Amino acid sequence: MAALEKLDAADAAGDGTTERAARHLVQPWPTAGQIGAEARTYIAYGDGIYITGAGGERLIDGPAGMWCVNVGHRRAELADAMRDQAMELSYNTPWYTMNEPSVALSERLAAHAPGDLNHVFYTTGGSSAVETALRFMQFYNNVRGRQEKKTILSRQGAYHGSTYLSGSLNGRPRDRDWMDGADGMVVKLSSPNPFRRPAGMSVEAFSDFLVEEFRETVARIGAERIGAFVAEPIQASGGVIVPPDDYLPRIAQICRDNDILYISDEVVTAFGRVGEVFASLDVFGVEPDMITFAKGVTSGYFPLGGVMMSDRLFETLRRSNHPDAMFAHGLTYSSHPVGCAVALKNLDLLEGGILDHARSVGPYFQQRLRTLEELPLVGEVRGLGLMACIECVADRDSMNPLKLDNEVGRRIDRHCQELGLLVRPLINMCVMSPPLVISREQVDDMVAILREGISRTMDDLRREGLWRG
Amino acid sequence: MAALEKLDAADAAGDGTTERAARHLVQPWPTAGQIGAEARTYIAYGDGIYITGAGGERLIDGPAGMWCVNVGHRRAELADAMRDQAMELSYNTPWYTMNEPSVALSERLAAHAPGDLNHVFYTTGGSSAVETALRFMQFYNNVRGRQEKKTILSRQGAYHGSTYLSGSLNGRPRDRDWMDGADGMVVKLSSPNPFRRPAGMSVEAFSDFLVEEFRETVARIGAERIGAFVAEPIQASGGVIVPPDDYLPRIAQICRDNDILYISDEVVTAFGRVGEVFASLDVFGVEPDMITFAKGVTSGYFPLGGVMMSDRLFETLRRSNHPDAMFAHGLTYSSHPVGCAVALKNLDLLEGGILDHARSVGPYFQQRLRTLEELPLVGEVRGLGLMACIECVADRDSMNPLKLDNEVGRRIDRHCQELGLLVRPLINMCVMSPPLVISREQVDDMVAILREGISRTMDDLRREGLWRG
Repeated sequence: MAALEKLDAADAAGDGTTERAARHLVQPWPTAGQIGAEARTYIAYGDGIYITGAGGERLIDGPAGMWCVNVGHRRAELADAMRDQAMELSYNTPWYTMNEPSVALSERLAAHAPGDLNHVFYTTGGSSAVETALRFMQFYNNVRGRQEKKTILSRQGAYHGSTYLSGSLNGRPRDRDWMDGADGMVVKLSSPNPFRRPAGMSVEAFSDFLVEEFRETVARIGAERIGAFVAEPIQASGGVIVPPDDYLPRIAQICRDNDILYISDEVVTAFGRVGEVFASLDVFGVEPDMITFAKGVTSGYFPLGGVMMSDRLFETLRRSNHPDAMFAHGLTYSSHPVGCAVALKNLDLLEGGILDHARSVGPYFQQRLRTLEELPLVGEVRGLGLMACIECVADRDSMNPLKLDNEVGRRIDRHCQELGLLVRPLINMCVMSPPLVISREQVDDMVAILREGISRTMDDLRREGLWRG
Repeated sequence: MAALEKLDAADAAGDGTTERAARHLVQPWPTAGQIGAEARTYIAYGDGIYITGAGGERLIDGPAGMWCVNVGHRRAELADAMRDQAMELSYNTPWYTMNEPSVALSERLAAHAPGDLNHVFYTTGGSSAVETALRFMQFYNNVRGRQEKKTILSRQGAYHGSTYLSGSLNGRPRDRDWMDGADGMVVKLSSPNPFRRPAGMSVEAFSDFLVEEFRETVARIGAERIGAFVAEPIQASGGVIVPPDDYLPRIAQICRDNDILYISDEVVTAFGRVGEVFASLDVFGVEPDMITFAKGVTSGYFPLGGVMMSDRLFETLRRSNHPDAMFAHGLTYSSHPVGCAVALKNLDLLEGGILDHARSVGPYFQQRLRTLEELPLVGEVRGLGLMACIECVADRDSMNPLKLDNEVGRRIDRHCQELGLLVRPLINMCVMSPPLVISREQVDDMVAILREGISRTMDDLRREGLWRG
């Protein structure tokens, strides 16, 4: 653990990392009151499912970084792949040239992708992947002479990125309070959240309601004005919302019938998170027109994302009357040789056993987590594969929010960190997506810590008179 | 050269990389007629200023990838830094945690940045850096209750990225023909291109004209409706436009007087391209409110970009009446530990001699290239440091465009590739930005090849009756 020794030495030398960070580093999602003057938990070292802080305290990496460290920390195969590729070809401009790793990766991804999604456009992450898919939709309709067919359908609870346009699709509370967006270009539908369906409505009726809402929206706006529907198969940072079984295939059919491009945002669900390389068809029965991916494709070791694109769309363009029309889009780091080399090795690891493991440990993870529903603070435990969410409520019958609702996730996280688990707190929820290599024993550890962390939180809330459960 | 042997073996095995690429890989800026069915020049190997194709043909990397391979290809220091950091901590979520390399890098960048630009927000490249700066401007004005102060001033000839919003700022011909943009949010001013200034006007008068145009635009729209001015100090892919000397400082003063944020887009000019880590103040005499950077920060080995941000703006936010207002912005790969470790090592190399070398070889590069103005096809050779452009015209007096104007750059590139140099063709221009480690002898090689390539192009054009020069 050279890292920790180095860090201790640095601390002993009064190097003051926290203060240096506060003075110079801006981290994501700061508040106006703290911007430019805050530091966060210092992580020095990662190994397998664990990360280790400056003082040597080891934590289970509950969110796997940010839904991304799928094969686990400190995989020498990926570190070596980076170095080896950088020593062969560290960069080439994709404007005029190409490299072998990006070609090989595209071929392998195409073999995994559903239907005729045989082409890949590479980006540097999820936001740029969604931007690519949306700009492609605009270009596609411009070339086809359908300049009006551009409205984007998104949903409450969605998260699709952190650029002006991709961020406009976000439908989570608080994401947009102080941020501008292209609101006139986006229409938001209901979140397919069965837990929050109207009281007394069956899940089947809820699905009917969602499909009817979609159909009515298309009729109201007009299919000739709607370019795309963008959807995470499972709304991830919206709280791991697993939709009713038949909902997505029914929506996909309406999209097909109305020439609306179905963009499946698999930034979180792909690369084994729910057991498959791509989940759209294999898990959710949907054959989209485009799939966006990122995160798990390199297990977070390298910023890489991309869009799987349909042959059919390209054929339409190639046969159009505007062969010289230019899709003026691309990034300096598109098709990056090092990123693609890392992704190839990552795919080797996934196919070489980790996908099988994820399929086997996923149901165990879900089953063990469900036992936390015994705790009265827990309204629901939900999820699929190795992604899950614990949602807290004041009481399960009324489903009323707690006092200090916004704080509950953070309080549970604080207790869990003391007990050895980093949780991703989200308002009144805790979201989990551990590295796919987690063992059954480690699942047990995780659930035991969560049980204790939630129990301590319940005690605190009772003591402070904030909760009577 | 293991890469080439491997490649030859693969070719011998009939592996058909070109066809595989055409079938599965989409590269940037495809045309509708070719999308999903094209391949580009295959590069297998890089070393120093050279890249090597599949057949073993070695080319000088004229554009340094895409203005980015500043320290050159195959630097073991960077490859090792990637591997070593990946084995310590390959990823941590910046939402809740932080890592040492990002703190150390921020500290060092702040020391190089002008004025009070002491904070860094990290992204994955130039587009996301510009998105970050623009979304921050929107947030900043929302928190200050200036919801109307959002118009963005950009310029003809500009290039700022490949997302919906950053792309809206682009002012190069053809970039926007078939692409949608947030046109209502952006106002474009003239390109400060002395070569294309009105006939008979002095450069000084041209600068006055540009400043007056800016002043009038602010008066017409109203400062209370203008959020930011975004400018590359040298318009790079617009054709290496070096503005008149006093133009940028005068514009900066108008911005300051009118509470308009000055965003200096140094994605190309930073990290030694014109001899300094940041060029805004040291080369152009401007102290901006934000500086965007990418490319050279890791010499293209790793997708990293960012925004240097001013203390003063943060202080304003911290003192506002909305301390809980959230800047809901950030990327999975913000503050990536591996990217920041690569950037630290890259900065070691730059500070350890490459910046000095660039300052010394830059004037020689410019002087040698200027000799190409002897060729009658060449209208102007311009540039600064290690970035330059050769612009072709039918004849220097009329400055009329050539027949086949769009093709000239590509034709020169084709000849130069045969002679051992990859050029970046751009309509009627060739743009150059070699790795900063280029020697004087290698500059001579480059210029000799360009002279021969342009001469052959002149012969072709004459033979085809397209040019009489």
